[in-house]
Amino acid sequence: MPAISNRGAHMPPSPIRKLVPFANAAKKRGTKVYHLNIGQPDIETPQAILDAVRHTDMKVLDYSPSEGFESYRKKLVEYYKRNDIDVTTGNIIVTTGGSEAIMFAIMTCLDDGDEIIIPEPFYANYNGFSTSAGVKVVPIPSGIETGFALPPIEEFEKAVTPRTKAIMICNPNNPTGYLYSAEELNVLKEICLKHDLFLFSDEAYREFCYDGRKHISALSIPGLENHAILLDTISKRYSACGGRIGAFVTRNQQVLDAAMKFAQARLSPPSFAQILGEAAVDLPSDYFDAVHAEYTSRRDLLVKRLTSIPGVKCPLPGGAFYAIAQLPVADSERFCQWLLESFSHNGATVMMAPAAGFYATPGKGRNEVRLAYVLNTDAINGAMDCLEEALKQYKD
Amino acid sequence: MPAISNRGAHMPPSPIRKLVPFANAAKKRGTKVYHLNIGQPDIETPQAILDAVRHTDMKVLDYSPSEGFESYRKKLVEYYKRNDIDVTTGNIIVTTGGSEAIMFAIMTCLDDGDEIIIPEPFYANYNGFSTSAGVKVVPIPSGIETGFALPPIEEFEKAVTPRTKAIMICNPNNPTGYLYSAEELNVLKEICLKHDLFLFSDEAYREFCYDGRKHISALSIPGLENHAILLDTISKRYSACGGRIGAFVTRNQQVLDAAMKFAQARLSPPSFAQILGEAAVDLPSDYFDAVHAEYTSRRDLLVKRLTSIPGVKCPLPGGAFYAIAQLPVADSERFCQWLLESFSHNGATVMMAPAAGFYATPGKGRNEVRLAYVLNTDAINGAMDCLEEALKQYKD
Repeated sequence: MPAISNRGAHMPPSPIRKLVPFANAAKKRGTKVYHLNIGQPDIETPQAILDAVRHTDMKVLDYSPSEGFESYRKKLVEYYKRNDIDVTTGNIIVTTGGSEAIMFAIMTCLDDGDEIIIPEPFYANYNGFSTSAGVKVVPIPSGIETGFALPPIEEFEKAVTPRTKAIMICNPNNPTGYLYSAEELNVLKEICLKHDLFLFSDEAYREFCYDGRKHISALSIPGLENHAILLDTISKRYSACGGRIGAFVTRNQQVLDAAMKFAQARLSPPSFAQILGEAAVDLPSDYFDAVHAEYTSRRDLLVKRLTSIPGVKCPLPGGAFYAIAQLPVADSERFCQWLLESFSHNGATVMMAPAAGFYATPGKGRNEVRLAYVLNTDAINGAMDCLEEALKQYKD
Repeated sequence: MPAISNRGAHMPPSPIRKLVPFANAAKKRGTKVYHLNIGQPDIETPQAILDAVRHTDMKVLDYSPSEGFESYRKKLVEYYKRNDIDVTTGNIIVTTGGSEAIMFAIMTCLDDGDEIIIPEPFYANYNGFSTSAGVKVVPIPSGIETGFALPPIEEFEKAVTPRTKAIMICNPNNPTGYLYSAEELNVLKEICLKHDLFLFSDEAYREFCYDGRKHISALSIPGLENHAILLDTISKRYSACGGRIGAFVTRNQQVLDAAMKFAQARLSPPSFAQILGEAAVDLPSDYFDAVHAEYTSRRDLLVKRLTSIPGVKCPLPGGAFYAIAQLPVADSERFCQWLLESFSHNGATVMMAPAAGFYATPGKGRNEVRLAYVLNTDAINGAMDCLEEALKQYKD
């Protein structure tokens, strides 16, 4: 039997999906499972954009251009302008989800053996795409004590080597919910310019900023024109995860030219969801107001419930729809598995993502979990009832 | 300015798209361009499968499972059974187009520096995906003299090194239209078993076999259970290129487990086109009869017209919808550009793909072009009128 590749063998399994068999078994036993483990919003996809797909009358479902439909990229220019990001259609390559934008960035800018600095905890698939490309992730620590603020510039300086080619951030952050400030983005600018590093900025959660704070895009930072690459997706913004439409946006022409070759190799992004994405730019401007109000009340409830449980710590997230909580347990993976295997309260249990999978440093985050507040407030209350009771019963 | 990666710099540009600016300029001048350069069929996507998408009534466009909807994979099992391919839902990972299936195969089975043997000429993007993965393509020659038959086993033996991990074929072949025989597939089996190599079989054109000949899948070859990986797509089969739905199919569990990690990293394949693909399996069985008859008459006309032009050679393709023709010119790329830049006949010209881009060996295929007979017979006649006249006028 021929052997698989080393990269296939070393590819990290998804930390979110590891517990799925236990959740399925719990459901089979008749236990209701509150899914706070995955960023799949329950918010309905706007009817108007689903209708845009339903009302298509194409004769041939043909390839779109590799860079995406021009009409869609024109709409995206409009959308970005409204968000203080000034780009042209030529700066945009439409991608198959944010995932492909991440992959294009890594493939276009880093070679096998190169290094990318990422504040940890971070979105686990950054590690997957890096591993598959032979790129080494160099984590620098952000911690629950500071609410997961950007590590100080000294930490970046210590991590830079001759092989460092890029820094990756997610803003607002998955998994921490942290929203970077103007000052923090300036720290990133300084270090990128000093060492000539790319800045990959995953802004999937741009619209999800709370408490009146404003999102600042890496593409709006003057002086980073050749360094900043925006990785984007419509998945969370419009509750359209299954569409698989994202964008790779930069003003660096050399990067665009190279990324286009990767885009051409895979021919084109999916046509249907581009139609949906194009319609989404014309949604009424109050669409996000309702979504925003809903997520704010979910966040507030979740954090209030969590922090009222003895021994649980959870900083208030400024954005996205995730929170990291520290639990009074030694090993959150064991606890999360126990919740699914051996626990129920009022016929229900809760599924969370053990946070260790979001850290690259072994041993970190072992008493933390990530919670996605993608369920309505009734469900969040139900889930928190379970967690509260479970922590009373659980013996480490 | 930070430097892009070597893989970004060395990624081969698409040989099909190189001439696009010249085609656009010709259109701007008012010249009609017959597109025989790209495998985008003009056949209408079946109304019934477009309707399946139009009639969806989902509330949330959520992620599908990373391996694809179970209902779709069940339908695919049915489809494959009808094509003498006996697999289970567990053998199938639904991919984002055939492109992603190719990428999964390379990433899962080969490491940076490993080698893959591919009979040339071959689908150019095999080279792109290999380059992006640091994999070396080792071409072995198939030629117009033998109608692009599989090279003899000695050629494979000469090409095998300790770094060889796989052989890649496309059957029926893009760009040659060659359909491999049972004997040829046995040669591949022998060499794969002897050297323990994976056999990647791209069967995008399975339904497009002519003259009563039957397609044999690599997955139907007994003894290759652990070696054969089927790379598939619905793009050509149902004229659904823009859907971006394909499949990665194998019985090798270790390969499936590793490929699933790549599949999970990119979350899921597009949902809408999975719905379309699922409906396609229920198309009436005579659907392909009409398509088949149409392509047969296009092929016959194209080859008849080509071979009646002095100095043009074109073997009759047994499958797919491509033909490679040898032209009485020194450099087909220059000729194809000239056709777009400086020629018109009855207000029209023809666009073809210079074949050199399908060869890995420098200098090969320079007097050949690939023609995709994806247009109706009137258009093919118009295109051949142009080519015939052009070859009279053209001075090398």
